[in-house]
This record gives sequence, C-alpha cells and structure tokens, in this order.
Amino acid sequence: MGKHGRLRRLFVVSFWILTVIVSAPALAEQAPQPPAVAPASPAAPSAPKAEPGKTPVPFTQELLDQLGGVKVAMDTVWTLLTAFLVFFMNLGFAMLETGFCRAKNAVTVLAKNFIVFAVSSLAFLILGFGIMFGDGTPFFGTQGLWFVGGTDNSPAMGEAYKGVYAALNWTGTPLWAKFFFQLVFAGTAATIVSGAVAERIKFGAFYIFSFFMVGIIYPIVGHWIWGGGWLAKLGMFDFAGSTQVHSIGGWAALAGAMMLGPRIGKYTEDGKINPIPGHSIALATLGTFVLWFGWFGFNPGSTMAADWSAIGRIAVTTNTAAAAGAVAASIMAWLFLGKPDLTMILNGSLAGLVAITAPCAFVSVPSSLIIGLIAGILVVLSVLFFDKVKVDDPVGAISVHLTCGVWGTLALGLFAQEQFMPGTTGDGLFFGGGLTRFLAQLTGVVSVGIFVFVASWIFWSLIKATIGLRVPREEEMEGLDIGEHGIMAYPEFQAPSR
Amino acid sequence: MGKHGRLRRLFVVSFWILTVIVSAPALAEQAPQPPAVAPASPAAPSAPKAEPGKTPVPFTQELLDQLGGVKVAMDTVWTLLTAFLVFFMNLGFAMLETGFCRAKNAVTVLAKNFIVFAVSSLAFLILGFGIMFGDGTPFFGTQGLWFVGGTDNSPAMGEAYKGVYAALNWTGTPLWAKFFFQLVFAGTAATIVSGAVAERIKFGAFYIFSFFMVGIIYPIVGHWIWGGGWLAKLGMFDFAGSTQVHSIGGWAALAGAMMLGPRIGKYTEDGKINPIPGHSIALATLGTFVLWFGWFGFNPGSTMAADWSAIGRIAVTTNTAAAAGAVAASIMAWLFLGKPDLTMILNGSLAGLVAITAPCAFVSVPSSLIIGLIAGILVVLSVLFFDKVKVDDPVGAISVHLTCGVWGTLALGLFAQEQFMPGTTGDGLFFGGGLTRFLAQLTGVVSVGIFVFVASWIFWSLIKATIGLRVPREEEMEGLDIGEHGIMAYPEFQAPSR
Amino acid sequence: MGKHGRLRRLFVVSFWILTVIVSAPALAEQAPQPPAVAPASPAAPSAPKAEPGKTPVPFTQELLDQLGGVKVAMDTVWTLLTAFLVFFMNLGFAMLETGFCRAKNAVTVLAKNFIVFAVSSLAFLILGFGIMFGDGTPFFGTQGLWFVGGTDNSPAMGEAYKGVYAALNWTGTPLWAKFFFQLVFAGTAATIVSGAVAERIKFGAFYIFSFFMVGIIYPIVGHWIWGGGWLAKLGMFDFAGSTQVHSIGGWAALAGAMMLGPRIGKYTEDGKINPIPGHSIALATLGTFVLWFGWFGFNPGSTMAADWSAIGRIAVTTNTAAAAGAVAASIMAWLFLGKPDLTMILNGSLAGLVAITAPCAFVSVPSSLIIGLIAGILVVLSVLFFDKVKVDDPVGAISVHLTCGVWGTLALGLFAQEQFMPGTTGDGLFFGGGLTRFLAQLTGVVSVGIFVFVASWIFWSLIKATIGLRVPREEEMEGLDIGEHGIMAYPEFQAPSR
Repeated sequence: MGKHGRLRRLFVVSFWILTVIVSAPALAEQAPQPPAVAPASPAAPSAPKAEPGKTPVPFTQELLDQLGGVKVAMDTVWTLLTAFLVFFMNLGFAMLETGFCRAKNAVTVLAKNFIVFAVSSLAFLILGFGIMFGDGTPFFGTQGLWFVGGTDNSPAMGEAYKGVYAALNWTGTPLWAKFFFQLVFAGTAATIVSGAVAERIKFGAFYIFSFFMVGIIYPIVGHWIWGGGWLAKLGMFDFAGSTQVHSIGGWAALAGAMMLGPRIGKYTEDGKINPIPGHSIALATLGTFVLWFGWFGFNPGSTMAADWSAIGRIAVTTNTAAAAGAVAASIMAWLFLGKPDLTMILNGSLAGLVAITAPCAFVSVPSSLIIGLIAGILVVLSVLFFDKVKVDDPVGAISVHLTCGVWGTLALGLFAQEQFMPGTTGDGLFFGGGLTRFLAQLTGVVSVGIFVFVASWIFWSLIKATIGLRVPREEEMEGLDIGEHGIMAYPEFQAPSR
Repeated sequence: MGKHGRLRRLFVVSFWILTVIVSAPALAEQAPQPPAVAPASPAAPSAPKAEPGKTPVPFTQELLDQLGGVKVAMDTVWTLLTAFLVFFMNLGFAMLETGFCRAKNAVTVLAKNFIVFAVSSLAFLILGFGIMFGDGTPFFGTQGLWFVGGTDNSPAMGEAYKGVYAALNWTGTPLWAKFFFQLVFAGTAATIVSGAVAERIKFGAFYIFSFFMVGIIYPIVGHWIWGGGWLAKLGMFDFAGSTQVHSIGGWAALAGAMMLGPRIGKYTEDGKINPIPGHSIALATLGTFVLWFGWFGFNPGSTMAADWSAIGRIAVTTNTAAAAGAVAASIMAWLFLGKPDLTMILNGSLAGLVAITAPCAFVSVPSSLIIGLIAGILVVLSVLFFDKVKVDDPVGAISVHLTCGVWGTLALGLFAQEQFMPGTTGDGLFFGGGLTRFLAQLTGVVSVGIFVFVASWIFWSLIKATIGLRVPREEEMEGLDIGEHGIMAYPEFQAPSR
Repeated sequence: MGKHGRLRRLFVVSFWILTVIVSAPALAEQAPQPPAVAPASPAAPSAPKAEPGKTPVPFTQELLDQLGGVKVAMDTVWTLLTAFLVFFMNLGFAMLETGFCRAKNAVTVLAKNFIVFAVSSLAFLILGFGIMFGDGTPFFGTQGLWFVGGTDNSPAMGEAYKGVYAALNWTGTPLWAKFFFQLVFAGTAATIVSGAVAERIKFGAFYIFSFFMVGIIYPIVGHWIWGGGWLAKLGMFDFAGSTQVHSIGGWAALAGAMMLGPRIGKYTEDGKINPIPGHSIALATLGTFVLWFGWFGFNPGSTMAADWSAIGRIAVTTNTAAAAGAVAASIMAWLFLGKPDLTMILNGSLAGLVAITAPCAFVSVPSSLIIGLIAGILVVLSVLFFDKVKVDDPVGAISVHLTCGVWGTLALGLFAQEQFMPGTTGDGLFFGGGLTRFLAQLTGVVSVGIFVFVASWIFWSLIKATIGLRVPREEEMEGLDIGEHGIMAYPEFQAPSR
C-alpha cells in the first residue's frame, strides 16, 4: 500500500467527494419531483364505470379507431414479448445440451444450437410459413410469404379482417407479429433434435437437416394442425404444441439417433449400459431454468392475443405441471435409483412442461398437477426404456419431448373441460365427453408420428448418402470440437490430447 | 483439404447458391411489402383528442365493455410478464449461490435452488395463498384456494368487484394472475434460505423446510402485511417486500445457519476466520445480473396493474439504488479491504435492491440513491459482523436480505413522500411526517422478526429431530454432491476423491 | 440402503401420501373452477365493431380519459419491458467478453462489465440525460434532469403535450420511463468499450472512463442525433443506434485499444499474430444468445410506443439480419478459414444485429437479409484487418460495433423505403431516392467518428497521466484478477501461480 496505493486512494476519495458535491443541489431540491398524476394510483378501481351525472362528450370515428388500435397494439405487444421468451429457449436448449455432454464436444453442441435458429429463421421465411399457413389443400399450403404479394391481413382498425393467411385470422395482430411468433416455435422443434444426435453428428449434416426440418417437415404437419388442414378439420386440438412442436422434434430426433447409432462406448458388447456423465451440471440447470422461463411465453403466449380470461390460468397450469413433474421425478429417482439425481429432476420439470403444452388452456389447475405428475414418472421410465433398447440419446430429448409430447396430446382428450374455452374442445373422457375427442387426439399422434418419422428418415438418409452423417471414429474419440470447428471450449482446462 | 474437403466446399457453395436463387424472386418483389398503416407512426401524438367537427358515432354497451376489457387485459399482461421476471430470479439465486460455493457442493446447491420453486408452487397452491389472502382473522386467513369454490374475483367488465380474496381487490386482474404473481414472490422468500445453509444441509431437510416455509410461515406474515391483517391495519407499508420477502427469508436463513453451525474449517479454534472462496465468480456474476434484471419485475410489477404514473419511476428508483449500492460497496472494499473485491460489489448491488424494495414506490429518485448507498455500506459491515459472531453464511444471504431488508423497511418511514402515492404512506420522518409512520415500520420489522425466527427455529428443530439436518462429517469433507445426489457437477474437471 | 435409508424412504413416502391426501378434496371439486368469462375467447374478433342495434350508452369525459390512459399505459409497459431487455444485454456483454478472455483475467472482465452499468446509471442521471435531451444549442443540451424543476412532460390524458425535454415529445410515455429507456442505451455504449481494452487495463481507469463516457461523450453526440441537434436537423437517421450506441462505443474502444497497445505476446517481433483463445466458449455463446434476446428490446423498443404497425416488422428485420449474419460468417469461416469457427459465427450474428440497428424500422425484410449477410462478411474481414494493423481487440468489439455500426448507418441511406415510416427517411439510394439521404448518413458517420475518437483520446490521456491506464507487466503476466481484485475466478481449477 505504498505511495502508489495512497495516490489511488486519494483519487478515489476525491472522485467520490466530487460526485456527492455534484449531486448535492439536486438532493436539496427533492420537493419539485415530478408528482404522480393522481387518478392512476394503484388503489383506484380498474374497470370503467359509466356513472350518471358525468358530462357527456362526443364519441367519434377517430376515438373508435383509437379503441380498436389499442386492442390490436396490446395483442401485438403480448404476442411479441412472449415470442421473445420463446426465442430465449434457444439459450436454454443450448446450455442444457452442452451441460449434459462432454467438454470435448461442447463447442459443436453450442454451434449446432446456435446456428439452428439462424437456419430456421431463413428457412421459415423462405418456405415454411407459406406452406404452413397458406390457403392450400388440406395437406399442403401453397403460399410463400414473399411470393404472394404480401398483403397484410392485420385488421385495419374498425374494419373486418381480410387476409391471405386465413388460418391465422383468429388473432388480430399484424402479419409480421404472427410470422415471428410462429417462427420461434418452428425453431424450437428444430433445436430439440440437436440434443439426441449430439456428440457424434457432423456439424454440416445437422446444418442441412435443420433447413429441411423447418422448411418442409414442420410446416407440413403445421398445416394439418394449425393451418386449417385435415387434422384441424378432424377436431384434433394442440394448444401450444405438445405434438406440433415437441413430438415433431422428438420423432425427427428418434430417426436421427437410430440412424446414427450410439456413441462409442455407451453400450458394451456384453449388454452393459455405461453412463456418460455431462461435463457441467451447472450449465444444464441454467438451461432448464431458462426453458421453464421461456415456457411462460410458449404456453400463455399461444393465445396470440392478450386474452385476460385465459393467460393467467395458462401460466398457472403450465407452472403447476412443471412443478409436479420435478417433484414426481425427484421422488421416483429417490425411490428407484436411491438418490434424487438432479438430472432426473431437471428432465422431470421439462416433462411436465411438454405434457401440459397441448392441454394448458383447456384443463383445470388440479388436472394440470396430475398431468405433470404422470409426465414426471413417465420421463424416468422412458429414459430407462430407450437405454434398454439402445437408442442413445445423450440428453434425454426423446423421452422428454416425444414421450411426454404424446402423453400431453392424449391427456387433452382425457382432462379437457368445455368451460375453459367454450366452443372448442368440449369435455374430455374423464369429464363426461365421449371417445370422439380422445380418438381425434390419438389420430393426430399416430399420423404425425408416422409422417415425421418417415420424412426425417428420408432426409437423414439423403444427407448420409451425400456428405455423410457421422464423424470418423478417431474424431469422435478425440472430441468433435477440434475436428469440426478447430477450437476447444475450455482450452485452459482441457488436456490438448483429449 | 483433400478430396473430402473439396467435396464439402462444393456442397456448401451449391447450397448457398441455391438459397440465393430461391430468394431472388422475392428480393425482386420488394415493392409490394406490407405497407405500414399510416396513422400509427411513432411521431403521431399518443393521447386521444376529442376534436370538434369529427363525425360522431354511437357509443354502445359493447364498446364500453371493450374499453374495460382492454384495461383489464393490459393490467394482466403487465402482472404476468413481471411475474415471469420474478420467476427468473430463481435462476439468479441458483447461479449466485452455486458460484459462491465449492465445486464439490455445486450439484446440491443447484438441486436445492431448483426443487425449491417446485415445492413452493405446490405448497402455495394447496395452503399458502388461502392462508395469506383468505378473509380470516387479523392473524390467519381461512380460505384455501381450491376449497372455497373458486369464484373468480376478477371483474366482469364494467361491473363492480366481488370476490372471496378481498385483500387483493385493489387490482383488477383475474384471480389466477394474482395467484401467480404472489406465488413467485413466495418462492423467492424460500430460495433466499438456501444460500445461508449451503454446503452442509441435507437435501431432504431443505426440501421439507421449503414446504413449511411457503405453506405456513410466509403466508401467515403475508396475511398480516398484504392480506389485510393486523400490520396492514396498523399502517405498516412494504411495497414489494423488503420485509415480506427478503427479511422473512433472512430470518429463516439465520435460524437455519445458527442451528446448523459453521462449515468444517470455516472458523478455527484460535478464533481465525478462513475465507472459503467460491468456485466460479463467473456464475456468481451471471446470477447477480439475472437478479437485477428480475428485480424490474419484482418492484415495478408490484403495482399489479399497468399504472403508468408509477411504474417508470419505480424502475428508476430500483435501478438507482442498485447502482448506488454497487458503487458504495466497491469504494468500501477499496478503502477498507484494499481492493475492489467483486463479490462485495455484487452483494452491494443486491443490498441496494433489497433496501429499495419496500420504499420503491414512495420515495424520490435522489432518496433512492441515498438508500442504496447506505445499503451498500451496511452489507459490507454486516458480512464482517456475521463472520465475527461466527454465523457462517457462505453467500452473504443474511447480510443482503435480512440486514438490508430491515434497513429498507425503516427507510420507508424516513424517506417516504405523500406526493408519490397520495393517500397511502404520508410523509416520512425526513419530510415532515411524524414518528407514527416510522414506528409502524419498526413494529413490523420487530414482530415479523420474532415470529419468523421462532417459527423457523421450531420447524428446523422438528426436521433435525426426525430426518436430521446436517450431513455426516465425512460427506461434508468429500462434498455433498456424491453423498446426496450421486453425481458430480464437473466430473471431467474434479478429482474423483474430492 | 441400511436402516437409515429405509427410514428416509419411509419419510419420503409418508410426505408424498400426505400431500396427495391434502390435495384430494380439491381434485374432487374440479367442477366449480373459475369459468372463463366468455367474450374474450381467442377466437373472438379483436377489432371493435360499432354494430347498429346495440343500446347506446353515454360517452363521458371520464371514459375519454380512460381511453387516453390505456394508450399511455400500454406505451409505458412496452417501453419499460423492452428497456429491461436492453438492461439484460449487460449480462450478454459480460459473458461474451469473459468467455473470450483468459481465466486469469475473468474476474476483472466481469467486474468491469458489472460496475460499468452502475457508474452509467449515476452518470446519466446526474449529467447525461440533461445534456442529451435538454433544449440547448444544436451542440449541447443545457438541462440537468434534477436541476430543472422536473416538470414531467408526460401527457395529462386528453391534453396536449408540454414539457421541458421537447426532443422526446414524440412519445407519450412519462418522463421516468423515457429516462430509463435512454439510460439502458447509454449503458450499452459504455460496456462495448470494455471488451476491446480487456486483459490489460486497470480497473480504476475503466471505472473513471465509464463516467466520462456516459456523462459527457455519449450525451453530446446523443444531443446531435436524438436530442434535436444539428445532425437531426440535417436529416441523419439512426433508428435504434448503429451510430449513436454501437459506433460511439466502437470509436471509444478503438482509441483505448490503440493507446493501451496489444496484450503481451499477441504480436511477436517477427510479425506473427498469436491467437489467444478465450477460456470458455460456453460463456461466450451464452452471452451472444442473451445479446440477441436483448436486441428484441433494443430495436422494436426504440419505437418507445406500442406502435403495432411497426414493432412486429422491426422484430423480423432484426432477427433476419442476425440470422443472415450468422449464416454468412459461418460460410465465410468454412470457405476461408477451413472450418466453421464458432467464435466467427457468434460475431457474425452480432454484426448483423449491429448493422440492422439503424435501419430496422425503415427497410423491408428482404433488405434486412442482405444487410445482415454483408455484415456477416464484413465482420470476418474486419477482424483480420485489425489484427493486421496490430490493434489488439480480445473480443472483436471494434469489428462488430464500429465496422458494422458504420455499415448499418450507411445501409439506411441505401435501403430505406418511404412506405415503412411515411414522412421520415424517404427512399434510399437503391429505391429511387437521391444522394441527399446517403450523404446525411455519411456526414453523421464521419462527424461522430471524429468527435468521439478525439474526445475519447483526450479522456484516456487524462487518465493515463493521473492514475495510469495499464497494469504493470508482471501483473499482466500473472493475470489481473489477483492484482486488481485479490481473488481468482475459479480458484479450484486454476493453478495459483497462473
């Protein structure tokens, strides 16, 4: 603390004193602070009242337009902000998957999870959105976003809708807000795949597959379910995408993982399953929190309108299912694996979230608790099952997104209650509805499963036949980061030979 | 870069060219892009004007309902989005606490911070909310959320309120939005505890305590302060929870840390204090940023309504206190510890945030600066004090949340100004108000402190007597991760024997 | 799994059963759940309709005020929530820069990135905002936020604007919301600097420079562009700050990096450039995702009003440019560096984001794609260029923020189309506009560049002459963390001698 230290201290003290002096006059003048304009104090009643005795003023077309504009603006704000949260789930997937993989493959997992949203953005813009929401056959929309002339179907205020993407007419937000909301969902389906194929797939192979996935596979099914296609006409419901997003991602992941085969050393010839622990549980936990956070955009945002009678309840059903899934998985792990393995708890919460995604708007909070509990149990059993049949899924993506996506879609047929969204699902099997609802859900699950698995298999095969799917054996042993990207994730902490 | 490399390059280039070709027609057609509908350009004046000469149109009951619905929807959007930010603080706490602990205990810290919100969600749903906001005695609400019949007290548009949770009638958002907002606050109080008891508590013990905390302790005090109970009637104010959330968490943490005793090796028999540095300052900094971010939900969101006259100012008082706390702590550390220790700076910003939480809506921006500066100084002194009296708190949670929670609650009695929220707090001691305001705050601080400390002590004792509170000595030496969860956080970077 | 294990299992099972029992009555009572009030179902049309035959009700001044209040509230909600996202970019910068630096300097990078926002908050409150938006000369505003009397210029509902910060009159949000939105932008400019000067600058030197930057340099230019000063009068446009935020930060960073000189060992005497890889690509990727996320606040939020006709499109232009930048950089790296280096992909997406920041509201989505593609190419070339001329920038901040900030500002003059924001920019050079628009942009780029570079050089020189700019050689070798802060970032994983 010699001369240098004293000088620095002197400087710091002077700076401090100067700051206080500069601030002092202001502090002395606190009185004329901007006063809160009175009527909007939080204790004031919120609902408008048409009290008698108030002076009437003229109501004009301009004010009517303003009223309409405010409604459209609020729906747009809600749709965009929840879309931002869904975008943020890309970080969640990236961290979850990276944490669950080994350090020697961290860069390639990160790179896949980063580029996938960029590729998705372009693919959905050029191809996907037009296929998904174009007014085409029941099987395939025929409008490209750019090719059609681009008339916005957002409502001129006070006027009726008219638009070229009629399947999205139920929400009054402008076209680009709708596009963006749908885009972040498409990106999610693609990023789900990356976890299951991690630690052995070529970066380029995944890059190309993402384009096919978001440009072709996802929007075709999307046209069936959300674009007014044959499943929508049949009466299948999937509010925020247990099938449309999660099980599509899961089926494509299953096809990829099967075609790739397991990682070297995962299953030995004598039938033993070797656990390959991830390199950072901290990153994995971070990712799961981010995903839970993002799901508050995913589910409540799928109203695509600031529908006050629904969004609060959807937030609670979503959260309750996540909590129930985490608790159930923790107890399952405690009882059957001996200790409450954190990786199971994390996947349990995600299982609950995936399962509640389809029914979130149509079921009661107690039902959401049951749906989440069952999902938390299912995911543990599913992880054990896929290891049994030697489908190697480093992060459990198939168990979380496919198994629980199917469960959630079917659960809608069981637990739905007419009262929550009158005129939509009707009552599920457990609430007095007939089998029709449940069978529509089942039809959706099966047909989407067959289509996506087959289509993915074809695309994976095409890639395998051209640029190849899997890195060479020596590259996999050494880690993909050097071979695929030429850098290491943690060069100071990793042995160079690893 | 042999044959294989050339082939890959060829493929990449082809793919690229293909993309451009596909895009080209669209690029050529830029003209018919969706035009911005003119009147909503940002330069247009925002406030509606009843200009003479405009054609009048009829104003109907339906339009009146729409106007009311827009207000309710906007309040709901604000309440939910800020609640999502508060939920996200769970990530902040998880990373802050994990970063400040040793790698060998990282999994258990992460697991505690993850499961606590799941447990809180169920406990608050089943028990907490009904106790907190039920219309019971001054001391204890008597309505369960599910047991009462569940009539929503959200306003049918244009009608008067009627509801069973009358203490929340001041906001017009639907019941589930209110529930969710209150839930994320309850979860915060529980997660505060986990830092102070880290690196030695059994996972199961904390799991159970969280249920008691959110199901019983938190909502009883909550009934007193926010549920219309005796402290509310006395005139104690706590806008966003310096006492209700932070000092409740802090008192429970203090009881837990005292009953557990310090970590092995923290205090040697000759009275020496051994610093035990955390294993990742990067994660701790990440966590603090996330907390600061989440606080913009915590404080401005506590209006539970999109009250434009308040929320901007609250954002600024919140931010100013955080900034002042960080600057003050950095200078304190520079002057008294010789170097600007980053861990002190992080805790300084949190100290400012905790302190401004109670008064954020009732004080001026200059006052918030002073409140934050003092908090930043207090937290450094408090950390030194608790080490002196050998209460081992690995992350400084007690100093941040208890010490500064008390300071903030009292500061409200000193700095409040009637003008900001007319009809609420009146003026504080420094602005011409009498002692009444200050004494009400002091009564709240003391009574909540006694109740929470004693109740926590009882619950901790019950757990200690049944399943035990602290892991065995050898497990603590080896790290709790193996013993409690069977996995390591960073298996590739940690020695297996650690 | 002895006696202890069985006891624990028994306890867990009991707890579980108890929970189910407590929940059971509720589950049985699902029927009386709060019903969704019918009219707000998402399928209902959103735009208000003045249908004939509906009973008219009186429209009063009170209702008119409510309509105005709802608009102001919604604009405030949008402005604040997007400002929170921009605040969150501080985390992004912190993680990106820390990940790209070495572990031995991680604490000091984190500390700089944390304290800079605290310092910015105070500097902008005390000095910056008044200089930037005060009604002064074309060159320098003369109002302090606190010194002026603080009349809020937010619109009393239904009345005309009147306020002391007239340059911000175009948005109807309250003063504190405006202040907060502008503050987070000022903080961003300051934090950009920290990356370029990392791993060798004294913590105190950066601390002081941040105050000068946000208190003086940034707001002077801000007055020119956004505060109604001479560049605004000249017709230069910069919607969200490619120049105002990013290139200001970039110029100050360039001055700092030049005056500091390169890190020891970066450039050897024989002209070789030694790559110094960052210590955690995981943190860098995390940071980039957070930045991309925050940019959805940065650009769409810069409407400072919930302008539904603009914000959705701005979200899409922003996202498309980011995606295009990432894809372009990945292909550039693949073709020219041999492998798709993830660090280039990350900087490519940021390059696209910086470039689209100025023109985001004024250009079509296809144009945004082209702007982003070019930015992704430019950033790779720029990184190579600055290494060539031996300006050592550890994180590529100058290439991302300065190079692409300049490109984006000029791109506005090329790609702008009158139709998107009628009455603002007019058409750019590529859409039939004359040279005037482009020359105004160029004038802005050049004049801001000269001013900021010279002013920064002066401030850096002042600091160098007083407390010194660069740490001693031995401290740089050993790592700044011990020398500047007395702690290590990862004490368990780092060799103490490092």
